[in-house]
Amino acid sequence: MTIRSNSDRRVTPGLTLVATLVATASLLLIPAPTVAGNDAGKPSYNEAGALILPQGYREWIYVGAPLTPNDMNGGKAEFPEFHSVYINPQGYQGYKNTGTFPDGTIMLKELVSVGAKKATSGSGYFMGDYVAVAVSVKDSKQFPDEPGHWGFFSFGNHPNLTPTAEPLPTASCNGCHEASADEDWVFTQYYPVLRAAKPE
Amino acid sequence: MTIRSNSDRRVTPGLTLVATLVATASLLLIPAPTVAGNDAGKPSYNEAGALILPQGYREWIYVGAPLTPNDMNGGKAEFPEFHSVYINPQGYQGYKNTGTFPDGTIMLKELVSVGAKKATSGSGYFMGDYVAVAVSVKDSKQFPDEPGHWGFFSFGNHPNLTPTAEPLPTASCNGCHEASADEDWVFTQYYPVLRAAKPE
Repeated sequence: MTIRSNSDRRVTPGLTLVATLVATASLLLIPAPTVAGNDAGKPSYNEAGALILPQGYREWIYVGAPLTPNDMNGGKAEFPEFHSVYINPQGYQGYKNTGTFPDGTIMLKELVSVGAKKATSGSGYFMGDYVAVAVSVKDSKQFPDEPGHWGFFSFGNHPNLTPTAEPLPTASCNGCHEASADEDWVFTQYYPVLRAAKPE
Repeated sequence: MTIRSNSDRRVTPGLTLVATLVATASLLLIPAPTVAGNDAGKPSYNEAGALILPQGYREWIYVGAPLTPNDMNGGKAEFPEFHSVYINPQGYQGYKNTGTFPDGTIMLKELVSVGAKKATSGSGYFMGDYVAVAVSVKDSKQFPDEPGHWGFFSFGNHPNLTPTAEPLPTASCNGCHEASADEDWVFTQYYPVLRAAKPE
């Protein structure tokens, strides 16, 4: 195909259309954060209904990093690691727009060991290595009987995360989240990113 | 402008061109995480050379959350807050591709107060509110004389962050980063996201 020269007036409407459509495509594609290889973080399930391990979650939206180290819990912390907590892009966009977590919201907690307690900047806690991944998903179709329609999952430990996970029993996680999380089973009280994103 | 009907064969090359360019634009736009309103986090400067406060950085890639609380530093921590540390998408993509931080990399540190020390999950540290923003930028054109070509900036405290910031004196930040950061003025030893993303 030969592209006509600018002096050929017949091509002008076509180029205008091209420019308009390219500009429109750009506008449509730019606003939402995209996640490589993960369909924007939408939850997906296998045929047996198990949740498939989300991909690309380290490029999702980080919401906060609670820490309950062993040395502050008599050596027996339930989760002695940093919790790097993420929300999937579609959940974040929905929350920013409406102030509520939409169906399809995924909260993902990646546990990271305490790697150091002293650095140039002082004494404290500094991240080490990845330990484990756990996930909660809000999905009224998939979890019609779970309180709040939140399902909870563990994908085990690095480097042997499981490719899929069955929902955990309601008593394992849901109850504590229901009782203690500030908003819709999510600990927004510890997640400044979400509090700041919530519309007035 | 009237769009010709499909039966008008003269329009076909134009539509093919449209489809090709739209498809090309889509491919170019999809792979990298995009940042609303911030041109993918590219550093930008005003006419006087001051760095403009990056926008949309809470949707960048989170790399880690060091913590040096006051109660572990005799009440006098230099940075008593959680450090929520982000890298801009173009810096992250470059690092994932090459294992080095490209020109235009921004590391952004948002300081977040310790909001609680006890929660249902145990004793520890839990994030409170936003305190301040500081930034480092690798830019060989903008900072030809800074060690490593890294410039360092403070945008002051929330809720009155400054819209622009002048580079801080080299002695303020650069020296400590040069001496103690594992890789190219960046504390990758505390940032598991970057260590995992680095190509073999």
